[in-house]
Amino acid sequence: MITMRTILAIDAGGTSTRAAVLDDSGRIAGVGAAASGNPTSAGIDAAVGNIATAARRALDAAGVQVGAGSAVVIALAGANTSAFRGRLHSRMSTLGFEAEPIIESDLLAMYFSGTHLDDGYALIAGTGAVAARVASGRLERVAGGTGWLLGDAGSGFWIGHQVVRAVVAALDGQGPQTELTAMLSKALDLPPSTEARDGRPVLLDQLIAELYEMRPVEMSRFAPMAFAATNDPVARGIVEAAITELVDLLVVVLARRQRGPIVVGGSVLKLGILAPGRDGLADAFHERLAMQMRNASVVAVSNGVVGACVLGLRHTGTAVGSDLFTSLRAQLADGVPGADPGRLDVAGD
Amino acid sequence: MITMRTILAIDAGGTSTRAAVLDDSGRIAGVGAAASGNPTSAGIDAAVGNIATAARRALDAAGVQVGAGSAVVIALAGANTSAFRGRLHSRMSTLGFEAEPIIESDLLAMYFSGTHLDDGYALIAGTGAVAARVASGRLERVAGGTGWLLGDAGSGFWIGHQVVRAVVAALDGQGPQTELTAMLSKALDLPPSTEARDGRPVLLDQLIAELYEMRPVEMSRFAPMAFAATNDPVARGIVEAAITELVDLLVVVLARRQRGPIVVGGSVLKLGILAPGRDGLADAFHERLAMQMRNASVVAVSNGVVGACVLGLRHTGTAVGSDLFTSLRAQLADGVPGADPGRLDVAGD
Repeated sequence: MITMRTILAIDAGGTSTRAAVLDDSGRIAGVGAAASGNPTSAGIDAAVGNIATAARRALDAAGVQVGAGSAVVIALAGANTSAFRGRLHSRMSTLGFEAEPIIESDLLAMYFSGTHLDDGYALIAGTGAVAARVASGRLERVAGGTGWLLGDAGSGFWIGHQVVRAVVAALDGQGPQTELTAMLSKALDLPPSTEARDGRPVLLDQLIAELYEMRPVEMSRFAPMAFAATNDPVARGIVEAAITELVDLLVVVLARRQRGPIVVGGSVLKLGILAPGRDGLADAFHERLAMQMRNASVVAVSNGVVGACVLGLRHTGTAVGSDLFTSLRAQLADGVPGADPGRLDVAGD
Repeated sequence: MITMRTILAIDAGGTSTRAAVLDDSGRIAGVGAAASGNPTSAGIDAAVGNIATAARRALDAAGVQVGAGSAVVIALAGANTSAFRGRLHSRMSTLGFEAEPIIESDLLAMYFSGTHLDDGYALIAGTGAVAARVASGRLERVAGGTGWLLGDAGSGFWIGHQVVRAVVAALDGQGPQTELTAMLSKALDLPPSTEARDGRPVLLDQLIAELYEMRPVEMSRFAPMAFAATNDPVARGIVEAAITELVDLLVVVLARRQRGPIVVGGSVLKLGILAPGRDGLADAFHERLAMQMRNASVVAVSNGVVGACVLGLRHTGTAVGSDLFTSLRAQLADGVPGADPGRLDVAGD
């Protein structure tokens, strides 16, 4: 095992954490994964533990000993507290990383997973929805990401919420009938029923009881139904409204003077709207986008691990040009184990 | 103290419980009030305790001893369980009421607080929003009332939620500026700030942190701001949208063949849209209503205590005609202590 100056690049998401070990020429020596590394969703202890596990696995796979001058860059959503940073630093130092870990926005890591250019845009729609303008390699303007209660129109929560509201409206006589009713009833194990009690369908009361037992954010698990009911006008309307909302969100951060690639990610965009075989939805998305920005180049990404490597290289003084970026993408093309969001309700991780 | 056959009529709401003691000629002998009598919101123990307290106070005020053949009628929202009914029965029997309490829908009690006619409509908008068609004195069709997560457009929750979303959108660059921003910031003790961090206003992050600390239903406490900011186009738009939603809800239960009065209640309608001095809003409501039903007679009620008396009299064999109904309204006109919803976020109780 050789001792070398190493960059440890980590994409710490809400469901999984991905780590890559590379040298300052951009050669990926090993990768590793673990469960959630987000201190807000997993708690500080579990997050630090999972980040360390992913890091150790990547170092083991690389078969290197951490040398002097090595650096850790972690891409992370949301607020990071000094308690979290302190614990993380002491845990990382047991792995040989003496310098304080550099914490970057997960949004910036998603962006740099799709491009090496310093100016451009990111639009991420997973459980939440957020857009950013990147200028000179930093976040210049961010919109959205305000969570299920206050915003996030077009997100996985929003789509799932629209699904359950459409079913409730149909059963309550407030909206058109939809195939989503049978799909949702089946998912919740409710037998079909046309019985009414006290002037209201029994199925509606059962549905209400089941849904209020869930945490609101769990509505996102019903989002895939909107994509699955391809011939249902109500379901189709929900997805088309999501496309409109997401492009509108991007418009908030657009600056007329600035062009650049649009990096898109998150399960709703990557696995839903832009998935292979969903040409109609992808076309609708590109058409709406073209109305705002002509000839925009759209790059879809699965996660932020490539971008974490880019940020790691930049922090240690290596400029990342087109060739090096292409090489990083290619080296990580097979992915880090656990790197692909397998569920539609997972936000960019 | 005389012993007599008594009707105990109770309107058990989510914030307060009102009781009236009357004889079978419709003479009100005493009234009383206590805190929430709703087993869902207060818990079974507290609800039964509060109902008994309101009952005892009404009996004490009446100065009568409960005689044989006396009856209890309780108007109550939502599901009532056998556990609740059992506990209620045993508690009421300690007050001298031997027959099992008769439980009625709070919606029907609101309706009969506004009319003695057997056929008509009710539209209630408090924390929630619900509409009903009453035929032959029973609920024939109910729409809405599906709660904050699944429906209730036009309700106090909905209006408050629109207020916070409008402020978040304004700060996030997704919506127009509004006076509601200053009102909400003040209510949450957040100092004005135009500072930005990581491409986003600091005030927005503070606001998000504060609002996610609250239970979602508590958004209803911001509903009064939409009514207070009378010159703000955003606030005005929210209230006008609520009016549209509420009339649309009523339309769901309208039957072309059936006319009858429209009884409206709940804090949003009674204290907001139809409040004295809000002629513009009342006009907008009546105009939209007239598009659906010509010459509709609208009666506003504050709570369901008159209707609980009507239902009690009917159950014990007394028909309630126009004169008796007018007399009940007049006798209870000064109200039962605690009978008026003093807050805009209180649903019909």
